[in-house]
Parts: sequence; structure tokens; C-alpha cells
Amino acid sequence: MKVIPPCDPTADDRLYHICITVISLVVMLILAVLARRMKVGDRQKGLPGLLSPVNFLDHTQHKGLAVAVFGVLLCKLWGLLISPNPLPFTTDTANKRENWVILGVFFYPALYYPLLACGTLHNKVGYVLGSLLSWTHFGVLVWQIIDCPKTPVIHKHYSLFSSLPQIACLAFLSFQYPLLLFKGLKGTEKNNATEVSIDLGAVFLTSLSHFYKPKLPQRITDAVKSYIYTPEDGKYICLGPMGLLLISAVVPSLQTARLGVNEDVANLLAGFRIILSPDKHEVVRIVVYYMWCVEVCYISAMTLSGLVNLAMLMRSMVLHRSNLKGLYRGDSYNVYNCQRNIRASRPALVCWMGYTSFTAAHICIGMIIQTMVFFLCLLIAVFLVIIPVLHRQNLILFQVLPFWLMLLLVVLIQHITARFCFIKKTGGTRDLDNRGNLFLLTYLMFPVNVLIGVILGIWRMIITALFNIVHMGRMDISLLNRNVEAFDPAYRCYAHYLKIEVSQSHPVMKAFCGMLLQSVGQDTKAGQRSRDAEEGIQLVQQDKKQNKVSIAKRARRHWQLLYTLVNNPSLVGTRKHFQRQTTDSFLNGSLNRSTREESKKEATTKEAEAAASN
Amino acid sequence: MKVIPPCDPTADDRLYHICITVISLVVMLILAVLARRMKVGDRQKGLPGLLSPVNFLDHTQHKGLAVAVFGVLLCKLWGLLISPNPLPFTTDTANKRENWVILGVFFYPALYYPLLACGTLHNKVGYVLGSLLSWTHFGVLVWQIIDCPKTPVIHKHYSLFSSLPQIACLAFLSFQYPLLLFKGLKGTEKNNATEVSIDLGAVFLTSLSHFYKPKLPQRITDAVKSYIYTPEDGKYICLGPMGLLLISAVVPSLQTARLGVNEDVANLLAGFRIILSPDKHEVVRIVVYYMWCVEVCYISAMTLSGLVNLAMLMRSMVLHRSNLKGLYRGDSYNVYNCQRNIRASRPALVCWMGYTSFTAAHICIGMIIQTMVFFLCLLIAVFLVIIPVLHRQNLILFQVLPFWLMLLLVVLIQHITARFCFIKKTGGTRDLDNRGNLFLLTYLMFPVNVLIGVILGIWRMIITALFNIVHMGRMDISLLNRNVEAFDPAYRCYAHYLKIEVSQSHPVMKAFCGMLLQSVGQDTKAGQRSRDAEEGIQLVQQDKKQNKVSIAKRARRHWQLLYTLVNNPSLVGTRKHFQRQTTDSFLNGSLNRSTREESKKEATTKEAEAAASN
Repeated sequence: MKVIPPCDPTADDRLYHICITVISLVVMLILAVLARRMKVGDRQKGLPGLLSPVNFLDHTQHKGLAVAVFGVLLCKLWGLLISPNPLPFTTDTANKRENWVILGVFFYPALYYPLLACGTLHNKVGYVLGSLLSWTHFGVLVWQIIDCPKTPVIHKHYSLFSSLPQIACLAFLSFQYPLLLFKGLKGTEKNNATEVSIDLGAVFLTSLSHFYKPKLPQRITDAVKSYIYTPEDGKYICLGPMGLLLISAVVPSLQTARLGVNEDVANLLAGFRIILSPDKHEVVRIVVYYMWCVEVCYISAMTLSGLVNLAMLMRSMVLHRSNLKGLYRGDSYNVYNCQRNIRASRPALVCWMGYTSFTAAHICIGMIIQTMVFFLCLLIAVFLVIIPVLHRQNLILFQVLPFWLMLLLVVLIQHITARFCFIKKTGGTRDLDNRGNLFLLTYLMFPVNVLIGVILGIWRMIITALFNIVHMGRMDISLLNRNVEAFDPAYRCYAHYLKIEVSQSHPVMKAFCGMLLQSVGQDTKAGQRSRDAEEGIQLVQQDKKQNKVSIAKRARRHWQLLYTLVNNPSLVGTRKHFQRQTTDSFLNGSLNRSTREESKKEATTKEAEAAASN
Repeated sequence: MKVIPPCDPTADDRLYHICITVISLVVMLILAVLARRMKVGDRQKGLPGLLSPVNFLDHTQHKGLAVAVFGVLLCKLWGLLISPNPLPFTTDTANKRENWVILGVFFYPALYYPLLACGTLHNKVGYVLGSLLSWTHFGVLVWQIIDCPKTPVIHKHYSLFSSLPQIACLAFLSFQYPLLLFKGLKGTEKNNATEVSIDLGAVFLTSLSHFYKPKLPQRITDAVKSYIYTPEDGKYICLGPMGLLLISAVVPSLQTARLGVNEDVANLLAGFRIILSPDKHEVVRIVVYYMWCVEVCYISAMTLSGLVNLAMLMRSMVLHRSNLKGLYRGDSYNVYNCQRNIRASRPALVCWMGYTSFTAAHICIGMIIQTMVFFLCLLIAVFLVIIPVLHRQNLILFQVLPFWLMLLLVVLIQHITARFCFIKKTGGTRDLDNRGNLFLLTYLMFPVNVLIGVILGIWRMIITALFNIVHMGRMDISLLNRNVEAFDPAYRCYAHYLKIEVSQSHPVMKAFCGMLLQSVGQDTKAGQRSRDAEEGIQLVQQDKKQNKVSIAKRARRHWQLLYTLVNNPSLVGTRKHFQRQTTDSFLNGSLNRSTREESKKEATTKEAEAAASN
């Protein structure tokens, strides 16, 4: 094995980072000036718009740019933790490394921020700058990789492998900005309106489908579908580098060790009194074969873990969607297993801020643990079951066969006697029979049942450990017992995250805001450029003071509000003046399902009276 | 350390086993003859009574004898699995050991059966025989222990320690039989009647207490009480030998190793390039100190595990009682988290037969795993935290302090900004504020939050693993997520066990049978010796054909039946002809809680009409 010399790319990393930092600063300044000029023409955009990278709460918006930038950040974070030289500005590697890591953790988000900011202004100059910036990042990275394809760190191709996700993300950005530049804004807005209405339809459809039970083929299709979901989410990005790292950290050293096996191994094993064969060549052959088995096990475990995580992630997203729909309908009990108040709160907001990062971290940890455990299980299976069976020697598990047969027989006897001797069916009801013999059998089987219980206990341990390990990366289910669910920190975080999501993105609320915006647009002939529901709310509040709306229109709005609230009880808690106005508290009380039918009429009458009296 | 020579007791184990087997056979024959003679006088007792050791379903019966015999059996099973010579009949130890184990598993229950059978006849001769038999067992065991107090197996006092629980159980039996002989039967029957009425009262009380909420001091007392329970159950017996084994298997060898440490250790450690101190005497002192620490950790872990299991067992029993009461009241949803049909079935019966054994096995496995895990945790705590802090060296955990501080600071910043900047309270409702800045902060904190997520993930892993390990011995809770609870084999078994218990021991049913028995007793002046509810049912069925009961009495019984069914909906499913009679199905339908009040009157009218028309 030849030694790879350290390689310095033509585009020096240190110089490149200093240059690109300066360029990014300049780009941000240009964007700020641009934003200030735009502010004069359009009230909504401007500096606040520039500093708000993406509306994370609006799920109908296209988030390709944000996902790509998050992907790049994840790769950079990974490099920060792994490489001996966390930031390229410094030359002394060992001294105060963790301080540089801390700095890097905050430096990289700032460095890549302009890539995101160029898209927030929805302006041609912004898109041009974004294209140039992403092309620079992409070009320099590819240039560096071509200059130094092999590195002495971990594996000769490690640098190439670990850069691949980053290159993909940057390539996506380099492609997306020119596309946005040429396409303009028209396509996106159409999408928005359609998606809202689809969501709305889905909510009503689901509430209908609650009342009919699907047939068997339908159910099978549903079960398959419930694991398939094609999202555009950044969390998948962490699967790639994680898998590559897990492979490149172990497999090359195993391969090197396998190639380096010679006859000394036989002497070494003889030192431990392990004699695989009298012939030394034969020993080398066996050891190489075993090492090849280990390698295969490791790669299989890695692949399995990746697939499991992919399936879990898709399942998690499908479930998240159904949880959202359930909470929109007010089914708090089904989702949380208890009644919860769905409104924004401090812990909920903190959990919401960290949710994406936490998921990425959990998937990484899950993959590491899964790989280790699956590797161990495969090793045990291969070396204790498959190889002994193939070679017909050392059949440890099959030596105590009579014992296993005895246990099986006892279980069978208990089942058969329970079915035919101890249960009596008379007149459609089942009761115990032959109680004396039942008690006698229970007594006689006591010691054997203890042995069966030991096997059951081991099985319980395996099942629970495996379930928890497989579901490690999923934050949307608790790994604990139903009574102590909230002690699982990941599930607790998800529960809080869900609160914010539901309280801020109710599709009916959005559709309602859209309707109001449209009617306002007809009245005042204002520009139709308002992009999302949040801005819509602000617009409505500001325009209310300017325009005097007729009483008839106001009454109609009250009616619409009431209809919405009756059909979507989860919205009631988020209303303003919820606790002060008596009509509202009455409405809330009357939203009890059992009495909804009668109360609807009464409530509508009262609300209409109140609206008319305004 | 001196070698202990193998020791043969005066009462040779082989001869003793052959003799006691013959004696047990003779005792069984005498009992059988006695039972046949008693059968002529009293219809209920006889051979079937002799072959039905204890009524495991009647929880009001005194079960001291059964618990003691089960304890002896557990100890014997333990010896069977540990000792190289499973049964004393054989002399060749290594050859076909597992066949002898299989034989022993069935031999010991049969051997100790007469100890139980002597009590089933409730007869003076039986008690005399039982006393003699238990004295023989007890005497020979004590004699053997005094003859050979030290053995070369595992530890010199292992034989003494492992015999202690067995001696205790046999001593209890030797004391109980003479007591029964002198006391007679009077006391026991009184107890029966009282306990039934207490149970009945408890059910009604609990259903009342459902409607009022306790205050705080009351709640604290309840929480403490919910872990305290003083039962007379055989499951505790397995805690003793298990703990003794865990201690005697490890501690003596550690002690031996500690005493054997000399200056060679310094050379050995130097071979691994571990130099604790330049002075060899100092190295010996340090190594001995470290080994003492390990020993202390191990004993602490063992004690902790024993205490945890004791607490879990008590909690489990308290919960079992509340589960039973809940199911008596028909609260299937609270116990099972879904609607279940509570009636006897094949799997339920098999699980019921094995439940006690499974619990014992689970507690043993739980103790082993807990001891290992606690030991590991204590070792890590001692050698990575306590000793470094005491000696102020190798403070590995404190070297990356700035990193921890940074993470803490970020979490604090997120909480503070969430509280004061991003949440707006207006008019009693909370909403998000400053969305742009919120999104910006979310973006900038992304990499740090990934690091926090890693810590959260590791914490999740620790929490779930610790919870599952601590609750390993408890079968009454599932260790899995609430949606897949039934995949936990132990919980599944408990759920089935509970079905049988509830369907066979409903206190109202028992009280009702008692009432019927009393009225029958008044009519026919039959002997009042009928002992439990099961026999009561048989008696009623047989007597029904003999006596013509007047129509008025039958109507009164129908009314009583109806009243019971309305107040205890869980009994409806266990009625005969449940699915065939229309009145019953109507009654079942009307037991819906929401409409119970109105339907009660209608149902009672219909039932009364039906009763009158019979």
C-alpha cells in the first residue's frame, strides 16, 4: 500500500475562504441597498424581508433553496467535527481546537446566508447575484477536488466521497437561480393557490372518510402507501454522508487487514491456543475467508440501516401529515393520547426552532447504533448459525435439541389441553371446565414454565431493544410506555413542534385569509402580489382602518367566521379575545360533539344577533 | 487460601431421595384411600379434590401452603440448572446432563406434591401426615447442611446460602401443618365471607370515588401508598436466591484476586504501558484500592437492583388490583387502551397457567440485567467522575468545558428570545411575533441545534434503555410504544391473564353466588360446608333440578340479576345464552353510558315482563 503525500490544491482553502467571505459581504451590502430602494415602491418587502430567509411555517412555498443550503451546512458541520483543522483560517491544528469549532459553528451559517438571501427579494438582480455566488462556490469546490482527488485522511477517496452531497447541493443552487431568473414569479403563485385548496379538500375528505371502513385490498394499498411519500426535505441529505462515512471509516481498514494476512497469523492464533488447521496455508485461507465474511456483514448492516432509516423517515412524514390533519379537525386525543391546549408557548417555540436539526441528529445517531447492532446480529448469525451449518461442525445451538423439543412439547400440551379439556362452550358463552385438573396441570408445569418464561424474557428484551433501535431516528413516536410518553425528550419535542405547526398553518385559516385578501383586492384594487397567509393577515389589519366596510359585508364575514369555527373546533382556542367575550366562551362550550347539532343553530342565531347589533 | 475437600453428608442425598420418594408415594396412597372413604359421606370432596391442589382462582383463600411449596420448587429448579449433578440418582455427571435436567423438571413437582395434597382434604389425618412429611424434609435438609457446611462449588458458603430460602419454606410448612391440625377449619371460613364483602365494598367505593378529585396531601399519600403493598406471594421468594447467587458468584473471586495482588502487577501493567506510579509498592496499593472500588460498585449495584425489583413488584401488585377493579367496573379502555372482549379463551388460559412462572423468570432476568447495567454505570461514574475529581487529575469530562458552556448558552438564548421577542400576548391569546427574526434565528442556530440534537439523542437512548431495564421484571406494563403494545410478549401474557382473572373472580358474582347458596341452605337445610364460589355454582345447578322454587322467588332472583347486570356491565358478556336471547342483546346495547339512565327503566320493565311470563 503506497503512502499518499499531503496535497495542496491550486485554489488554496485559506485564501478562498477569505475571498468568498468578502464577496459574500459585498453581495449582502448590494442586496441591502436594493431592498431599501424596493421598500419605497412596495411596503411589504425591504430589509425585514431580506433578513427573514424563508417562511418555515408556510408549507405551500417552494423550499428548494433552503433545503440545498441546509444540506451544505450539514456537510460543513460534519467536516468541522471530523477534520483536524476545523477552520481554514488557522494553521496550528492541535491547540485550542474546540474554540475554532465553536467559531465555525456560527461562521458557516453566516457565510452561506447570502446564497439564501438572494432569493428572498424575488428580484432579478438578486437572482443574478445568487447565480454568480453559487457558481463560484460550486466551481471552486470542484476545482479543489479535481486538483487533490486523494487525501491521507481516513481513506484515500474520503474527501471525494464526503464532498459529493455538498457538490450536489451547490449544483442544485447553481441550476435553480438561473431558472428562477428566467421563469420569474408567475408559476409559483399559481402553485400556492392550488395547494391550499387541495389541503382544504383533504381535510374535509378525511373527516368524511372517518365514517366508512375500507375493504381489504384498499387497506393493503393504504398500508403500502402509508410508507411511501415523496417529499422535498433536507433530512434525507444527512443519510448520504452518514452512510459514506460509516463505510469509508471501516471497510478500507478491513480490506487492508485482509490483504496483509500472512502465515504469522497462524503463529499468533497458536499463541492463543486456537488451531484452525494444521496447515499454515490453510489457516491463512480460513482467516481471509472469515475476514471477508466480516466485511460483507458490515456492508450489509450499513445498507440495511440506511434502508430502515429511509423507510422510517418516509413513514414519519406520512404520519406527520395525518397528525396535522387530525389536529386540524380537533382530534387531540388520537394524536397526543390526552387533551392538550394547542397554542404557541415558549417551550413549543424552542422545540419548533430546533426540530429539523434534532431530526438530523437523531437520524445520524440512529444510523450509527443501527449499523453497530445489525453488524453484531449478522456476525452472530453468520458465525454461530450459517457457517456451522455449512461446514457441519461446532453446532453449538443444536447440541441441546432435546431440551428445546421438551419446551416446545410442553407449550403444545398446554395449548391443546386448554382448547379441548379446560374450556367449555355452552350456549354461546365460554367458561372454564375441569378446574381441578387445570390447577393440577398448572402446579406440575410450574418449573417448566419458569424455563419458558426465561426464553420469553430474553425475547422481550430483544424485541424491545430492536424496536427502539429501529425507531431511534423517528421523533414522532415515543419509545416509552404510554403512561410516561412525555419523558422521551424527542417525542416531547415533536409534540411541541406539532403545536406550533397546527396553530400557525391551519389550512382553513389560510383559505379564509386568501378569501379576505381577494375581496379586499376587489375593493381597493391593490396589487395581488401578497405571497402568503401571514402577510395577508397584516394586510387585512392595516386595510381595515383605511376602508369602511359596509354592515352587510361585515355580517357576511361574521357568518363565514362562525361557520368555519363550528366545523373546525381546533381554531376556537386561537381566536383573539377568546377568554373575554361571552359569546365566544358560549361557542366554545357548545362545541362539544354530542350536542353540536342543536347548539349550532342557537349559536348561529346569537352570533348573527351580535353581528347585527354591531 | 485453603482447598475445601469434597464432603459427603451422613444422610446420603441419593438414599434420602429414594426413601422420600417411596414415603411420598405411601402418603399419597393413604390420602387416596381416605378420600375415597370420605366421598361416601360428602359428595363434594374425594379423589378430584385430592388431585386439585389449590384453587388458584379464589383469592380469598389462604395460600400459605402453596406459596411455600412453590418457593421450594423454585430453589430446586435453581439447583437443577446450576449444579453439575442435576438429580441425585445418577453418578455420571457429564454424560447426558440435559436429559437428567428434563427429568428433574417434572420429578420435583411430583415429589413435593404430597406436601400440598395433605392440606386439600381438610382432614385431621391429612394434617398429621403433612406435619410428618414436612418435618422429614426439613430435618434432613438441616442435617445435611450441618454435616457439610462448606462446599467446593462456586463459594465455600454457597450451599448454605442457597439452602436458606428452601429451609425457610420448609420451616413454614412444618409450622403450618400442626397449626392447621389444632385450629381446625372454623377460622378460615369466617375470613372468606368477610373478604368477599370487603372486596365488594371496595368496588362500589372506587366507582364512587371516581367522581371526586383528591387534594394535594391526599395525592402525595396516594402516590406513596401506590408503591406499598403487603402481599403474601411467592414471587418475592425468587428475589432472595437470585441476589445471593449474584453476590456469591462474583464477590468471592474479586476478594481472592484482591488478596492475591503483588508486585508482578506493576510489571504486567508496564507491559501494557500503563504506569500508575514509579514505585511498585505504590502501584500495588493503587491496584488494590481500585479493586476494592470495583467490589463496592458491584455490591451497590446488586443491592440497588434488588430494591428496584422489590419496589417494582409492589407497584405491579397495586396496579394489578386497580386493573382488576377497573375491569370489574367495565373500564376496558383504561386498562387495555382499546375495547376487549373479556371471556375465557385458549391463549388466555395458557397465559394464565404460566403467569406466575413467567413473572418469576422475568424478575430473575431483570435482576441479572439490572445488576450488570447498574454495575457498569457505577463503574463509569466512579472511575470517570468521582476518582478524577477527588485526585484532581485526568479530568477528561471537564476539558471541553467551553463547548458545553456554548451549548448551554445557545439553549438559554433560544428560550429567552422565545419568551420575550417571539411570543406576543394580546387579549388572552398568544401568537407569534417578529416572524422574520424568528426564521433568521432558526437558520443561524441550525448547526448548533444539530449538536444539541446529538446530546438529546444520546439522552433519549439512555432514558429509554434505563426505563426498559428497570421495568424488565414487570409484566403488567408494555415496554413498547402505545400503538404496538401487544408485540411485547410479557404484556400480552398479562393482558390475557387479566381476562381469566376478571371473568372468573368478579366479586359481585361471588357475592351473588354466596347469597343464592345461603337461600338454598335455608330451603333445603343442606350442610353449610361449601367452601368457594365455584362449588357454589355447581351446587345451585344440581339443586335447581331437585327443588321447585316458587314463581315469586324466581321473579325476585331475576330482579336481583338485572340490578347486578346494570351496575356491573362487565358481567353481561359472561352470561349464558348471551347471544341468543333478544332481551339480553337489548340490555347489552342499552348499557351505553350516555343513555343508561333512560334505558334502565325500559330494560327493567321488559326483563320483568319476560320473567313474569316464564
